[in-house]
Amino acid sequence: MSLNLNNFYRARYVLKDVVHETALVKAPNINPEADIYLKPENLQLTGSFKLRGSGYMISCLSDEEKARGVIACSAGNHAQGVALAATKYGIKSLICLPDGAPISKVEATKRYGADVCMVKGVYDDAYKKALELRDEMGYTFVHPFDDENVIAGQGTIALEILDELGDCDAIIVPIGGGGLCAGIAFAAKCLKPDIKIYGVQAEGAASMYNSVRDGKIERLPAVSTIADGIAVKEPGENTFRICSEYVDDIVTVSEDEISAAILALIEQHKMIAEGAGAVSVAAAMFNKVPIKGKKTVCVVSGGNIDVTILSRIISRGLLTTGKTANLCIELIDKPGQLMEVSAIIAKYGANVISVQHERAGESKDINGCYLKIVLETRNFEHINTITHALKDAGYTLI
Amino acid sequence: MSLNLNNFYRARYVLKDVVHETALVKAPNINPEADIYLKPENLQLTGSFKLRGSGYMISCLSDEEKARGVIACSAGNHAQGVALAATKYGIKSLICLPDGAPISKVEATKRYGADVCMVKGVYDDAYKKALELRDEMGYTFVHPFDDENVIAGQGTIALEILDELGDCDAIIVPIGGGGLCAGIAFAAKCLKPDIKIYGVQAEGAASMYNSVRDGKIERLPAVSTIADGIAVKEPGENTFRICSEYVDDIVTVSEDEISAAILALIEQHKMIAEGAGAVSVAAAMFNKVPIKGKKTVCVVSGGNIDVTILSRIISRGLLTTGKTANLCIELIDKPGQLMEVSAIIAKYGANVISVQHERAGESKDINGCYLKIVLETRNFEHINTITHALKDAGYTLI
Repeated sequence: MSLNLNNFYRARYVLKDVVHETALVKAPNINPEADIYLKPENLQLTGSFKLRGSGYMISCLSDEEKARGVIACSAGNHAQGVALAATKYGIKSLICLPDGAPISKVEATKRYGADVCMVKGVYDDAYKKALELRDEMGYTFVHPFDDENVIAGQGTIALEILDELGDCDAIIVPIGGGGLCAGIAFAAKCLKPDIKIYGVQAEGAASMYNSVRDGKIERLPAVSTIADGIAVKEPGENTFRICSEYVDDIVTVSEDEISAAILALIEQHKMIAEGAGAVSVAAAMFNKVPIKGKKTVCVVSGGNIDVTILSRIISRGLLTTGKTANLCIELIDKPGQLMEVSAIIAKYGANVISVQHERAGESKDINGCYLKIVLETRNFEHINTITHALKDAGYTLI
Repeated sequence: MSLNLNNFYRARYVLKDVVHETALVKAPNINPEADIYLKPENLQLTGSFKLRGSGYMISCLSDEEKARGVIACSAGNHAQGVALAATKYGIKSLICLPDGAPISKVEATKRYGADVCMVKGVYDDAYKKALELRDEMGYTFVHPFDDENVIAGQGTIALEILDELGDCDAIIVPIGGGGLCAGIAFAAKCLKPDIKIYGVQAEGAASMYNSVRDGKIERLPAVSTIADGIAVKEPGENTFRICSEYVDDIVTVSEDEISAAILALIEQHKMIAEGAGAVSVAAAMFNKVPIKGKKTVCVVSGGNIDVTILSRIISRGLLTTGKTANLCIELIDKPGQLMEVSAIIAKYGANVISVQHERAGESKDINGCYLKIVLETRNFEHINTITHALKDAGYTLI
């Protein structure tokens, strides 16, 4: 692989009519000690940056290759990126998806113009099928990250950032397979050698983190994270080499940190990020990288989050910020107790979401029972006021 | 009141360094039969358009009035708009809020630089207190909508829309008190007399709708909607007059339609709108206004939604789109039943979110009991498959 700035500027020129140049968003409250901007690739067409890499890669194909079409394997953003890029260049695309892929992603892939091949099994089965079909039908395989042109396409993000914010000190980039981070690190360091590039992975899928630490590519036996877009077991050869050389540090963030970052983007910026897209913001929020006083861009790489997962993240965020409370109250099983508890809760202005009342064998009193209540509350202080009032009235909280 | 285009262009000039000119977003899937754009004022500073009106109104004050400061009453977007506008012009602001106002809104108002006066009671009490303080201290009262300069400030949105999309056929605008809609309708019709302006209210707060229909200002005894930003009991005198003259039609949308619009903006545009901000999109989605084949802008007026409410809307959206299912299964109370039901659910790939198992007095069989299960499902077809499998195995679903 022989990357140089030519590749990136050519990619930017070629992608001019394919991608949308997302404008930086100032984010003063993500980390008040730094000067933070967001690069909102969640607002990119198809909801993620992936269109850039597949778009440039496809544009570089020969006429003969274009006539035969492309194939890819993905249950997520790459599928939609390849589908739309191929459609924009007027060529045929076929995407292999594992049959457990979310319906919404399958539908989106079709809507962007791809043919879809559902493969029984998991990602690895779909990948195998895609390679078989490539060999059989002569399609060109579009790799999700470990390809020179894909890397150059993703790296156009660095050119846009430095055009808009020439004195940028640092860029924080999510890492899955490493294509986005390799492209941004290479292009940014070519233009501004003193810029810092930080990569971020989810704790539960730290394959590039481990590999760079140990100086060799390592494969994780399994990955587990809500950031499904970066849940990759093994980095690419090229992306590993470029990240090792050009990325200043790689850090990891926890699931709760990712959730907090997603919530912060909703509350402060009215913006939906997926887990993979929010890891850069999580790293900035929780001081995982040295950005105090620095002009820093967090690349929010995508926003394709399932609403089911979004709902779980919000529920968890409500609990961890005191906006809901789960109380379990031990009662004596006699008339009037539920009314008394309800009266106390009402007096302090909490809103009852659900109630479960059950006789419990483990209670010390044979007449004992438990009342499990979920409340909508204002904050932890509010919860404390209510629990103290219940205790003052003689109730035991478990 | 003697509005003309001067007011609007002067407002736009004055607001140049105060507001952010939000760029239109193409929204092809909101209503495929129309050509829809969003004007994303949820991405405006303070998360809503309100800054425009209060900003221009405050800029028009005399030096003496500026020296004394301004006062306003609001538990929502107007509070934050006045706070930031006053801070930007370097003058003092005091906001009266009812003491039940959400903590998050109180904190945001303080963060934008206002002093806050918490008033015991509801909105009307806070309003009374604000007028008292105005008379006592000589502050200028910033009305949330029924003021010439406030209307001119909100109307700058129409100038921006027509600059960016000169051949726009229609603009759909949320209506609460009517300041936003009056400003947009007046300015847009001055520039392009054949443009259509449609106002939208929530069914549960249709005060302008009723008033315009009956040709006189009417006050609702109560309002109830998740679109709290437009839950206004009575339109203003000026806004009523302007909306009656310049708005082509006013329609209403239901709570479920508003929720569906909020979800569509999340899924399709990675964007958070509050209920009030989404009513324009709801009107377009559910064909409440005649926009087939028309270039139409939906003004998404704000995004300050409480995450608690957002979570409820998503939960409801998950149910109404088949992404979760609540099943209630009648069991015979004997060992092995829960296992059998679980096995059927697992076989068809649904994910169990919660289970409640209870003996029930009303069951026809004295050994009967109910199993209430909440499942994460793919779609209604998936739910049907599971319920049929349960029925085939002999279970009764209630």
